[in-house]
Amino acid sequence: MSYRAPVSNQRLILDAVVGIHELDGGPEADMVDAVLEGAAALAEGEFAPLLRTGDTVGARWNNGAVTMPAGFREAWSSFVEGGWMSLAAPEEHGGQGLPFVLSAALMDNLNAANVGFALCPMLSMGAIEAIERHGSDDLKRDYLPKIVSGEWPATMNLTEPQAGSDVGALKTRAEPNNDGSWRIKGTKIFITYGEHDLSDQIVHMVLARTQGAPEGTRGISLFLVPKILPNGSANDLRCVSIEHKLGIHASPTCVMSYGDHDGAIGWLIGPEHGGMAAMFTMMNNARLNVGLQGVGIAERATQRAVAYATERKQGQRNRLPVPIAEHPDVRRMLLRMRALTMGARALAYYAFGQVDRAARGDAGAGLRAEVLTPLVKAWCTDIGIEVASLGIQVHGGMGYIEETGAAQHLRDARIASIYEGTNGIQAADLVGRKLGLDGGLAFDGLIADIEAETQDSRLIALTDAVEVAAATLRASPPDDRLAGSYPFLTMVSVMAAGWLLERMARSGGADDQTRAAASYFLASVVPEALGLGAAAESGAALLYAVPAEALA
Amino acid sequence: MSYRAPVSNQRLILDAVVGIHELDGGPEADMVDAVLEGAAALAEGEFAPLLRTGDTVGARWNNGAVTMPAGFREAWSSFVEGGWMSLAAPEEHGGQGLPFVLSAALMDNLNAANVGFALCPMLSMGAIEAIERHGSDDLKRDYLPKIVSGEWPATMNLTEPQAGSDVGALKTRAEPNNDGSWRIKGTKIFITYGEHDLSDQIVHMVLARTQGAPEGTRGISLFLVPKILPNGSANDLRCVSIEHKLGIHASPTCVMSYGDHDGAIGWLIGPEHGGMAAMFTMMNNARLNVGLQGVGIAERATQRAVAYATERKQGQRNRLPVPIAEHPDVRRMLLRMRALTMGARALAYYAFGQVDRAARGDAGAGLRAEVLTPLVKAWCTDIGIEVASLGIQVHGGMGYIEETGAAQHLRDARIASIYEGTNGIQAADLVGRKLGLDGGLAFDGLIADIEAETQDSRLIALTDAVEVAAATLRASPPDDRLAGSYPFLTMVSVMAAGWLLERMARSGGADDQTRAAASYFLASVVPEALGLGAAAESGAALLYAVPAEALA
Repeated sequence: MSYRAPVSNQRLILDAVVGIHELDGGPEADMVDAVLEGAAALAEGEFAPLLRTGDTVGARWNNGAVTMPAGFREAWSSFVEGGWMSLAAPEEHGGQGLPFVLSAALMDNLNAANVGFALCPMLSMGAIEAIERHGSDDLKRDYLPKIVSGEWPATMNLTEPQAGSDVGALKTRAEPNNDGSWRIKGTKIFITYGEHDLSDQIVHMVLARTQGAPEGTRGISLFLVPKILPNGSANDLRCVSIEHKLGIHASPTCVMSYGDHDGAIGWLIGPEHGGMAAMFTMMNNARLNVGLQGVGIAERATQRAVAYATERKQGQRNRLPVPIAEHPDVRRMLLRMRALTMGARALAYYAFGQVDRAARGDAGAGLRAEVLTPLVKAWCTDIGIEVASLGIQVHGGMGYIEETGAAQHLRDARIASIYEGTNGIQAADLVGRKLGLDGGLAFDGLIADIEAETQDSRLIALTDAVEVAAATLRASPPDDRLAGSYPFLTMVSVMAAGWLLERMARSGGADDQTRAAASYFLASVVPEALGLGAAAESGAALLYAVPAEALA
Repeated sequence: MSYRAPVSNQRLILDAVVGIHELDGGPEADMVDAVLEGAAALAEGEFAPLLRTGDTVGARWNNGAVTMPAGFREAWSSFVEGGWMSLAAPEEHGGQGLPFVLSAALMDNLNAANVGFALCPMLSMGAIEAIERHGSDDLKRDYLPKIVSGEWPATMNLTEPQAGSDVGALKTRAEPNNDGSWRIKGTKIFITYGEHDLSDQIVHMVLARTQGAPEGTRGISLFLVPKILPNGSANDLRCVSIEHKLGIHASPTCVMSYGDHDGAIGWLIGPEHGGMAAMFTMMNNARLNVGLQGVGIAERATQRAVAYATERKQGQRNRLPVPIAEHPDVRRMLLRMRALTMGARALAYYAFGQVDRAARGDAGAGLRAEVLTPLVKAWCTDIGIEVASLGIQVHGGMGYIEETGAAQHLRDARIASIYEGTNGIQAADLVGRKLGLDGGLAFDGLIADIEAETQDSRLIALTDAVEVAAATLRASPPDDRLAGSYPFLTMVSVMAAGWLLERMARSGGADDQTRAAASYFLASVVPEALGLGAAAESGAALLYAVPAEALA
């Protein structure tokens, strides 16, 4: 099944939800159209055809080198030559300075087309922002233009075997040289695109600990460590192996060894011990972008399921053979897939748009983006998994056969709820930090905006329930707050997505698909989320009634 | 991670939910214990160690022959020699005549240990019942003892490329010979264990259409078609290929070609055109058994997740490093996995117990079993998928690495909601046939029993909501009923499982695990299901607001 970029839905969201034409110094309507159509052509023509070979052949490791499947290098060249890496990058470093939300539209398409491939540019985006905000002028001059162009893809090296969600436990060490550079030694795992043959140079962002640094996250520093040194020689780093994963087989997940010999040469990004701040610059973007993986995969799975269900004949209605899409429960699944996908897209683009407003000086939008980030990361990736799984179900037995393609979406989607901070960590962020941000006003402002706009009784009921749960959680000790964090996150996300869908359906640009999706979402998904209120407020005592071992 | 059979939980359910010792002519307590412990040893010692090789090596096809991974043939011999195939089979054909619910305990364990392997005996069970109820004395004499012993595994051949859920569309033909046998010609797909090297003989149950038969399901007949004919020569049938599937790689899913030459020789089971009745005999059992696949996989995934989460240290509580199981949201996931697994097991065993009571002449229990069958098949397999997916999440990044083993459970679980009648078909059966069974008394009796027993306000609220939804659906035209069927099925299933868990927690035999699982289920899962009421009653108009093509 070929992929068709959802351009009209993207345009509607950019207009009715993001208000892209109201952005200070934002692009003209012509430019927005050109980007949407160009991104569609790139995703449909270059990335989508490589989805299955990316899965079946996948990235291959041999003696430190990683070979991408046939066609990937050429597609990457098209991407670079088309200037797509530079879309939202700053103009002073060779970027086009377009709104971040347009890169969201691009990544949405690339994720739908080939999420394992799209991870490569996604990681570069975070690196660009980290170097731009925290890097020295020399690093910016020497590295940014080529990362911005896409010629030198970048990576994020955070995780170590003992330091996953707990980044502060990392052990990689950095020692200073006399010339301002550092020598890095340590092993990093789960490094996405840590090695590949899409380019000769790869620029690694590596978290490490300097001598005498404080324990935990306060003692972490970020380094830029290139695969090839400025003098043209190979740096002391190596891809030791790649992982055998459930999905995203196109994406090489590398074990990276730094400094097997004298130490890998690197340069500080930001001040010593300033690694966490730089990392969060990368991560915040990456979290929104991972949310878009859920959106993109959901879109592709939905298109595939609709195509199958409108073709495959089975059973009868009124004594005539019909495609299975005509059976009520199959239709319910298709409509649910579409409604969840559209709701997730609206919520994600809305968050990207708030980041754009914040970049233009709107502090309130910045706070709103902070509140939305865990919702987008966690809920949109949960939606990706649910929609991909429904897609298999729609296909019946054929969905379980790998050649059909539906199963790959579930396998690919399953990682997104884990990396860049597990969804549980997102939920903890929501109830731990975001609920109290700006004295609680950041969160309450979202509620107030929804209450001021919605006219739907079911959404009003959910918003009321969210308010009650928020009040309970705020008044609760940390464990109780954490115990209810996940169901609370889902309620808040559904509330926000429902609000945006309702607005889209009422806007002048709404089409039938949008109205049908919004109707279903408000009639089914919103009431479901109401059922989560009890779990959100039920507290931690229940969870600790027996030791964990007793649950085996 | 090694598997430990949940013997104490099984015993509690057999006592408090099934009331196995009250069964007419049922087994003594000693015998129940012997079966539970023997099944545990078989599953732990013989089946579980082959789980991963079943996945990584899998069944292999070469020129019509299928080779099972190393160790499977020996494990199958242990199974046969231990008499496990004959557990619940009728004594007059070499069986032990034990209650069906004890075979449920056996299959629960085998599914947890190695679901791809356990499919082999599962299919034989359905065949035994079909031949016993509908077969001629000759067929019973010639085939039942060896199928009952496990020496000759049996298969079910229903599906054809154009006839999946719509069995009536099948085209395989049968023509009579002069000696009472038939010649079968046609192609069947998705035939589980259609070919393998666990045994020399394989006995195929094949649905086909005789000449001049009425169209649709009324014209279907069931045939017994052995791989090796009574004279020792090979029958005219062949495994053309096996499928490349998302999971259950140990289970060969065969394309079977019957009658490439003169026709495969077979014998009628039951009367001509009596195939549907015989098929439903096989399917009803198989549906309950597929529900147990969800239970077994959920059990294994839960055990694996608890083992990992109580070992893996990450982050701190009160400034001390702790295993991740101590973090509230991880603990929530573990408790949810345990609660869903236990609820699904209770519901499934309860249904098997009703089948046993029905076999002993309790007509009401037979009707109750009919109501429960779609719940067990659909909800327990949904639980299998949800719990397996949560298991990946608990493992974080490691969960996405295939070597960890958590991902296999999701891949294996994903088929169970599809085969033996998709879960959507189960939902249709619930609202189409079971809601009105015995003039509605069969369903209403379940509600009444729950209302008479439960003391939990949340469960009472859900039961009230189910009653309201049932009344709405009964008063609705078919499309509206079908539109709400899936959320309705989930509500009813959660209600019934919550009822049984509440009873278990209050019983004398309850342990801490049971009480904790029941508390969580009633506090979180039951209120969630309340949120489905709106979707159950929302009708079909919403679904058909736009043509299916508009959802692409």
